[in-house]
Amino acid sequence: MTDTHLSRLETVLAASAIEGVLLTSTESLAYFAGFETQIESGSAPWLPCPAAYLWLRGERPVLFLAEGEIPPSDLELDRITFASYTYTEPFPGISSLIAPLLSRLRHIERATIGAELPWLPSAIFAPIVEACPQLRFVDIHSILAELRAVKTAPELKRLRQAVKLCDCGQRAAKEQAGEGMTEVELYSLIHAAMEAEAGCRVPLLADLVSGPRTARVGGPPSSRILCQHDLVLVDLVARRDGYWGDSCNTFAIGAPSEPQRILFDRVLAALREAIAQVRPGLRVSELDRFLRQRMADSGESFPHHAGHGIGVAWHEEPRIVPYSSSMLCEGMVIALEPGIYVEGLHGVRLESVVAVTSTGAELLTGFNHTL
Amino acid sequence: MTDTHLSRLETVLAASAIEGVLLTSTESLAYFAGFETQIESGSAPWLPCPAAYLWLRGERPVLFLAEGEIPPSDLELDRITFASYTYTEPFPGISSLIAPLLSRLRHIERATIGAELPWLPSAIFAPIVEACPQLRFVDIHSILAELRAVKTAPELKRLRQAVKLCDCGQRAAKEQAGEGMTEVELYSLIHAAMEAEAGCRVPLLADLVSGPRTARVGGPPSSRILCQHDLVLVDLVARRDGYWGDSCNTFAIGAPSEPQRILFDRVLAALREAIAQVRPGLRVSELDRFLRQRMADSGESFPHHAGHGIGVAWHEEPRIVPYSSSMLCEGMVIALEPGIYVEGLHGVRLESVVAVTSTGAELLTGFNHTL
Repeated sequence: MTDTHLSRLETVLAASAIEGVLLTSTESLAYFAGFETQIESGSAPWLPCPAAYLWLRGERPVLFLAEGEIPPSDLELDRITFASYTYTEPFPGISSLIAPLLSRLRHIERATIGAELPWLPSAIFAPIVEACPQLRFVDIHSILAELRAVKTAPELKRLRQAVKLCDCGQRAAKEQAGEGMTEVELYSLIHAAMEAEAGCRVPLLADLVSGPRTARVGGPPSSRILCQHDLVLVDLVARRDGYWGDSCNTFAIGAPSEPQRILFDRVLAALREAIAQVRPGLRVSELDRFLRQRMADSGESFPHHAGHGIGVAWHEEPRIVPYSSSMLCEGMVIALEPGIYVEGLHGVRLESVVAVTSTGAELLTGFNHTL
Repeated sequence: MTDTHLSRLETVLAASAIEGVLLTSTESLAYFAGFETQIESGSAPWLPCPAAYLWLRGERPVLFLAEGEIPPSDLELDRITFASYTYTEPFPGISSLIAPLLSRLRHIERATIGAELPWLPSAIFAPIVEACPQLRFVDIHSILAELRAVKTAPELKRLRQAVKLCDCGQRAAKEQAGEGMTEVELYSLIHAAMEAEAGCRVPLLADLVSGPRTARVGGPPSSRILCQHDLVLVDLVARRDGYWGDSCNTFAIGAPSEPQRILFDRVLAALREAIAQVRPGLRVSELDRFLRQRMADSGESFPHHAGHGIGVAWHEEPRIVPYSSSMLCEGMVIALEPGIYVEGLHGVRLESVVAVTSTGAELLTGFNHTL
């Protein structure tokens, strides 16, 4: 899979004078090296960066990987392991990564190298800049974001799996939610169901809010107790094999009220109509305008994007926003998430993920949004 | 709490020519600003750094905080909010943090500023270095690590709470583990118990391995099914209110075998004897040697540190390692974790957290290690 991604990068960079890349973001490590950064407990106190990916035109790409990290199964790249955790002597820190990097970079003649400066620690960048005055570094993180917007078949397979994991979480949410339980108790049950399905830990970004909290768009689960007639908004963004799935549902505890039903039906209709419009060539700003207009028809608006691409990052190109100049293309995978939030009262957001096909959209989300 | 930490920093820096600090690590943001970085889903795709802490000698410290982040309750610092997530226009990215930072840094005359270069993104550092040629930046991450080794009373209170959360997880592990369940199912039950206790999500670093996997020291929970007579090694490192707790237990599914009992008793005796030795003035290397020697007496060794300090980082000073030149001081909080791993067969590790008092050690870990 990663060789296709590198070919794509080579093509994009051929137009520029960039002759290599040094990549350190979680997203690029997954995309170009098939490496999954452990993210749930923050970076190790002794090392800011578990891996780095280096590719120089005409050479095989190399993954520099900290000792103790689980190597990717990808066979298409060379791998160099650097010292990380130690107990018989002081931690080498980032110097153990800098040394092998420099041994590759020093011999290059004048060149421009692409990097992701927002995700490249200064402790790596500064010594490289000093030791390699013949190299010029340019930030290519936006180029990379564009590059990833259209998915390949193996990526689509992983995205299906990740979205399915979110389906499993949404079904658990609906089945397990009950009066008297706290938001965080429900959250834990959902997370457990997803981890049982995956057979491993699942990094999860989640909004889980109930009652009046649903009016405020999102937030982490709290110790608020679910009551009869509460709405519960559950937005699940889970990573599996390096790819993120996403979905949102809003449902009632007990029988929904008439206003809740009206709200829900309105959002669901808008979501379905938007999905029906998805096709290659559609302007992203049109899709955004359509969803905003449908909510405005009922006197409401939503203070967030109408959706976003999804892949190795939980939000990626194309962003479904008013100012977008992008057009939908076959192979893009996008989440659409209209919502209505009634101040002080409650809110509903519903979200599905679709793949843009040659003629329209394929719905990847498999659970049914029900109130 | 954070004003005490800043005073301590001022004192340490008074001896040097460092006249200010720009801090961006998760640890420093918690320690100096009381801000808890959201870590469980990685950094936001549009922003590498949710906050930065700036202090210049003679001025009040300032926390630069991305819009949408939950502000710390700390009242002792000024706060400047910078734009982050947007949907009506492109993401401003890190430039929205750089601008207000520069407006503060530009007016300073020649000065040396301390920073954490491994945790400072190049996209922040490079433009500052360019715009402020009168400033010299030095990496002070090791100085900060030393500074944090001795805890204050409010920190001790938070650490007690975090360790207690790990107690809750260990009790859940022992109660809930059963034949036929997978490692990850047990892990989810433990995590759920801790989140119910905390009333919010709990970032958790965990080893959860069973059967022959226990011989390999650690690893994430897998889909391996727990069987009769398996050992299960559960190491829980959980964050609460910015501070990490830690503990490890190893227990048997069903009745333990005689060799398992002998192993467990040996490790537990060593742990207890080590705790009994803890007192101010004890060389950390002595403590390390003691634990290694006790394991060597039974022909075994453990390929990791004998323990570590704990606080806003899950491993901090003092590291209980052979080469350490540190001495225990009153107020340090350390985890001790001897283990025996028998290749191909099984392993036992037991861990408790203690605070160094004026005369000895106070055990913070409250659950009983039982096989």
